[in-house]
Amino acid sequence: MSTADFQAGIARISDILCTLNLLAWDGRTMMPPGGVDARAEQVATLTMIARDLATGDALARAMDGAREKLAGAEPGDLRLRALDQAEREIAMLSAVPPEITAEMAALKTRAHSAWVEARADNDFAAFAPLLDRMMRMQRRVAEAIGGVIGAAHPYDAMVAQFEPGMTWDRLQALYAALKAGIAPLIRRAREAGEPRHDFMTRPFPIPAQRAFGLRMAERMGYDLSRGRLDDTVHPFEISFTRADVRITSRFRETWHPGGTFALWHEAGHGLYEQNVAPEFSRTIFATDLVNLYAVGGASFGMHEAQSRMWENRVGRSRRFWELHFGELRDAFPDQLADVTHEEYWRAVNRLRPDFIRVEADELTYDMHIILRSEIEAGLMAGELDVRDLPAAWAERMRDLLDLDVPDDARGVLQDVHWSHGYVGSFPTYTLGNVMSSQLFAAAKQSPGVAEGLDSGDYAPLAGYLRENVWRWGRASTPEETLRRATGGPLDPAPYLADLAAKVDALAA
Amino acid sequence: MSTADFQAGIARISDILCTLNLLAWDGRTMMPPGGVDARAEQVATLTMIARDLATGDALARAMDGAREKLAGAEPGDLRLRALDQAEREIAMLSAVPPEITAEMAALKTRAHSAWVEARADNDFAAFAPLLDRMMRMQRRVAEAIGGVIGAAHPYDAMVAQFEPGMTWDRLQALYAALKAGIAPLIRRAREAGEPRHDFMTRPFPIPAQRAFGLRMAERMGYDLSRGRLDDTVHPFEISFTRADVRITSRFRETWHPGGTFALWHEAGHGLYEQNVAPEFSRTIFATDLVNLYAVGGASFGMHEAQSRMWENRVGRSRRFWELHFGELRDAFPDQLADVTHEEYWRAVNRLRPDFIRVEADELTYDMHIILRSEIEAGLMAGELDVRDLPAAWAERMRDLLDLDVPDDARGVLQDVHWSHGYVGSFPTYTLGNVMSSQLFAAAKQSPGVAEGLDSGDYAPLAGYLRENVWRWGRASTPEETLRRATGGPLDPAPYLADLAAKVDALAA
Repeated sequence: MSTADFQAGIARISDILCTLNLLAWDGRTMMPPGGVDARAEQVATLTMIARDLATGDALARAMDGAREKLAGAEPGDLRLRALDQAEREIAMLSAVPPEITAEMAALKTRAHSAWVEARADNDFAAFAPLLDRMMRMQRRVAEAIGGVIGAAHPYDAMVAQFEPGMTWDRLQALYAALKAGIAPLIRRAREAGEPRHDFMTRPFPIPAQRAFGLRMAERMGYDLSRGRLDDTVHPFEISFTRADVRITSRFRETWHPGGTFALWHEAGHGLYEQNVAPEFSRTIFATDLVNLYAVGGASFGMHEAQSRMWENRVGRSRRFWELHFGELRDAFPDQLADVTHEEYWRAVNRLRPDFIRVEADELTYDMHIILRSEIEAGLMAGELDVRDLPAAWAERMRDLLDLDVPDDARGVLQDVHWSHGYVGSFPTYTLGNVMSSQLFAAAKQSPGVAEGLDSGDYAPLAGYLRENVWRWGRASTPEETLRRATGGPLDPAPYLADLAAKVDALAA
Repeated sequence: MSTADFQAGIARISDILCTLNLLAWDGRTMMPPGGVDARAEQVATLTMIARDLATGDALARAMDGAREKLAGAEPGDLRLRALDQAEREIAMLSAVPPEITAEMAALKTRAHSAWVEARADNDFAAFAPLLDRMMRMQRRVAEAIGGVIGAAHPYDAMVAQFEPGMTWDRLQALYAALKAGIAPLIRRAREAGEPRHDFMTRPFPIPAQRAFGLRMAERMGYDLSRGRLDDTVHPFEISFTRADVRITSRFRETWHPGGTFALWHEAGHGLYEQNVAPEFSRTIFATDLVNLYAVGGASFGMHEAQSRMWENRVGRSRRFWELHFGELRDAFPDQLADVTHEEYWRAVNRLRPDFIRVEADELTYDMHIILRSEIEAGLMAGELDVRDLPAAWAERMRDLLDLDVPDDARGVLQDVHWSHGYVGSFPTYTLGNVMSSQLFAAAKQSPGVAEGLDSGDYAPLAGYLRENVWRWGRASTPEETLRRATGGPLDPAPYLADLAAKVDALAA
């Protein structure tokens, strides 16, 4: 019976976390402006209930009971694995003293306002004191979680919340390989000059953009009977079990690739969630107790690998536009009358270094991530002081992208993350990029996948990912998932090869 | 401190109930079809948590502590009133054994399916066994709640869940007066014949219907910065505190008054919720613990009084269309080119008895309610057997509306309520009608209200209702609210006068 108690306890927490996701989704899509404060109370109450249930005695007793029942179970038994995983996540969740969580939540609102003002005024000094307080608290979080997971570096604890098993040591090795591999590609891309892109800013009516983007997302496998698409300023994907997985995008009339590629990116996330094994719904294998978040993906990085694959490996491939540009032109005959599929493909792959991460191209994006990771690691280790951030930022921007930061608004103040106290999630973007190429390369070796990509049939690729990645949810670590799908560990070579091939093709 | 604990306990329950309302709203407006089962789990889990918190020891201790602290408080102290109200509602909630609640919830799905089939097949006998089980359980509910409130008749307990203080005895007296008053009006209306209404079924594009309806709702006072309008098959209003009060309507291109009047009806509900005193948010004065429902209105009947007032007393008045028909015609110049405001007013007040409650006109609607109330009271008292319902229905339909029921689908099987186990809420529709006229008559005596109605300025009416009804939320019983606003108790005379005046005007 105790195994059932454990399962029921997790199911109940999962229901609350799914509901919290709905509160968040509604707050970003549907809620009238007046609802903000009441919504914050509702979110706080439900979060506290979920936290109390996860760290409470009843669940602990149920887990002890389940552990006894499973004394004779095989080591690979999923029920044992569920217990181990719940214990590990609850230990991390419990490690952070509630007063720090409460203090950070209170500080967040003030820090966010200060950041908004500081960015508008281009005045880092005005934001620095609050950022300093936030980072001091995050150092205490790093210490607390670090103690539980036995972290070698304070940044390990921050990263582990989003990417189980990842360390600053391993990230540094990866980053070194990426820097070495990408730097010459950036130089080559700069020399090659820019493709024609005048047609990108012509007016493309938004309903037709949405219809085209959604039709392609459905062809990729996104199931609208268990999903929906809405418009938000910042696109995102969120799920309330695999049965209800929603995505958003942001369409602009005079910059149509923005909304379309964001849609495919989010649909990639959505595909992962929609294809987690049904029996994992309402279990620890579709629940993230560390972040108190209902999610089926193994980690933030593995999630990003799916979104990046459909956005970049599939959606920005030459073959994709050979196959589908005709459909796009049917939807926008006037706007694209004088454009070839080759020109269109080149335009959506335009490479040009930029100060701003969210506008970075595929080649330079990881440099932005490396910059932030190094700064975060320095802050967590106490080797970097908040007041030195603008200089540290400018120095790395020169090293990595050969750009001179014009001001703090376009430098250290550009991202919202730190004002919210988010530290440790940036690396998962680059991990996602790297893994997307590994998975894509492995998938293409599987029968039917390459042929499918060549003919515009994406079911074989989706089928491969479903079997080897998606359906496993959080029942495998990201590393196990990667090994199952690719046969090997994290490896930047396929990603660097993809980037090099793209630079070659664009230069030709 | 203990008063604070009590308040915090209710605030937490209120947050959960607001969230449950969001789960319900989303399920009826936004949720993809695949999400149904997962949503049911989420609703069940949150309902159980709210119920456990409301009936649990922690809240009981906090209430005992608060009671001690308030030992010396004045009898009218709102804090005492809050305690009394919470105690009374929790006693009713606790009275129903959880196993009955669970059994009814389980039966509901089967009974609903059986009802859908039976209605399609016009086969009451196929639904009767499940309905019988449902009613047996509801009799046990009536017994349990009846014991707590000291009910004189089993139906009292059912009605009290929706209308505190109302009894079958009082309802019967009211119904007798309505039957006596309305029967001659129905005869007169039949004799007067039907007005011109050919233009009602012309095509009216829905976006323009919505825009006109919403513009008028805003003029009535509905605040879109704390609300929104969506489309659903069955229109409703629902709130997540006064800061977020949403309404829905159902627009049909070839029956435009349907969507418009439904919108004003729901906006009337919305006005009530949006104008409950801000300090009542997250307190027992904006929380219904009997029904585990976040709502600021004093009762279902008082809520309906607001919606009916704006829909019928204001929206179907002759003056309203003298003032606003021009705007409607501006929106639909072709469709209304050959129509006068007088013709339009007559058309939206067309009186004709119908078998179907939801399509009934203003004059005959209450007869449908009386019919259902008598049957429900008979079932609860064990005086009427489920298998006798078709005959009982037909007999009353002849008595009350002089109509011969053609079949069970258009008779006893027409409403969804009983399949869900809802018993006792029908009378609140008629109570709402009656009180809407009482409140409207009283409001017109207040300075500026009649002049406002005459000039199309609805702020004075809204102001009167805000001061005398809306802002009091659930801190007054419906009876106290009615006395405050009108100076007297429930009284059908103003309603009968309004109906008679309308019949007179239409016959002229």
